[in-house]
Amino acid sequence: MEVFQKEIKLPPKHRGFNLITGELEKLCPEIKTFSAGIVHIFIQHTSALLTLNENADPSVRADLETHFNKLAPENQPYYLHNSEGSDDMPAHIKASLLSSSVSIPLTNGELNLGTWQGIYLCEHRNYGGARKLVVTIFGEKKK
Amino acid sequence: MEVFQKEIKLPPKHRGFNLITGELEKLCPEIKTFSAGIVHIFIQHTSALLTLNENADPSVRADLETHFNKLAPENQPYYLHNSEGSDDMPAHIKASLLSSSVSIPLTNGELNLGTWQGIYLCEHRNYGGARKLVVTIFGEKKK
Amino acid sequence: MEVFQKEIKLPPKHRGFNLITGELEKLCPEIKTFSAGIVHIFIQHTSALLTLNENADPSVRADLETHFNKLAPENQPYYLHNSEGSDDMPAHIKASLLSSSVSIPLTNGELNLGTWQGIYLCEHRNYGGARKLVVTIFGEKKK
Repeated sequence: MEVFQKEIKLPPKHRGFNLITGELEKLCPEIKTFSAGIVHIFIQHTSALLTLNENADPSVRADLETHFNKLAPENQPYYLHNSEGSDDMPAHIKASLLSSSVSIPLTNGELNLGTWQGIYLCEHRNYGGARKLVVTIFGEKKK
Repeated sequence: MEVFQKEIKLPPKHRGFNLITGELEKLCPEIKTFSAGIVHIFIQHTSALLTLNENADPSVRADLETHFNKLAPENQPYYLHNSEGSDDMPAHIKASLLSSSVSIPLTNGELNLGTWQGIYLCEHRNYGGARKLVVTIFGEKKK
Repeated sequence: MEVFQKEIKLPPKHRGFNLITGELEKLCPEIKTFSAGIVHIFIQHTSALLTLNENADPSVRADLETHFNKLAPENQPYYLHNSEGSDDMPAHIKASLLSSSVSIPLTNGELNLGTWQGIYLCEHRNYGGARKLVVTIFGEKKK
């Protein structure tokens, strides 16, 4: 088994649920050099997160943004942490509802996702800026 | 260290939170051949998910289904994605609230779960069909 | 690649979101012996969980506790599972909203967290007692 690790930076995304499978695959051609293992993708932030969800109909991503805004609304009277803007505390709540990492099986040089699965970067700030990720791949190298 | 990977298919489950620890262990006897490592279980779907929760009282599973239906209700007027049935968009929301994978320490040939922990397949469609999982085990083999 | 695994026990925490990054690092000096890999931290409980979130302003942790108590309130009339106290079923719901494990990239002997990221133990019982974790580190050892 071998381990490969790299840090990557994704350019700023709009607030919401952004499909990034293709962008990540381009930035990590090393995936192709492994025959079996895991790709671990970690985001170094607490207001932009990762999840896996449907890769096809964009209305799923729109509905997720609408509904997560209901699960973690802005401007609740009981929020103590509001010095960084009304989008900040909801972003922290969404951070713990979603995940700081996704790990995906790697099979024959490909992410072994289901037909309808894609990787999302969930940007919860209005102006989130570029986001830093650490990608760690471990498994058997192709011969 | 070695890596072992296999794809398995679980027969259709009822909508709700289904305990599958025993079923998975039977399908993955390879767990017994490792002395220390991680078992990574990944579901290739966006409307059936995985989580760990209590393995004893079935009322916990019933209450989880009831409460997640409140957190992600059907037929909300703001849903845009409703062409696949009223259970579909709530399933996608639950997908991101729960997880597409669980990873569990493997110790001395056994899943090193707590006394009360079990693996759940959370089926969020009314008629979800069989579900595909990818199991990846990595660690030291027993000598 | 090598794998290292140990079980650790954390002393009882107050109900709420507790920052434990420093405590974990002290208990796992083995992290320093790896050059690249993953640290997988697993909690063997279904009413105390793990997540990553902001490591600075304590008001974030207070607001998370307040808001998760709204997402999974006590004493709902539809709960069937209430024999273990009013804090028990909400704890199970939070268990599946949060996570039984976090996995963090390890780089040059350090947890490769973002500037503002810390590891939280989320204690959801009023009197939760000590909590057991399994830490698994895998990757390349330093030379």
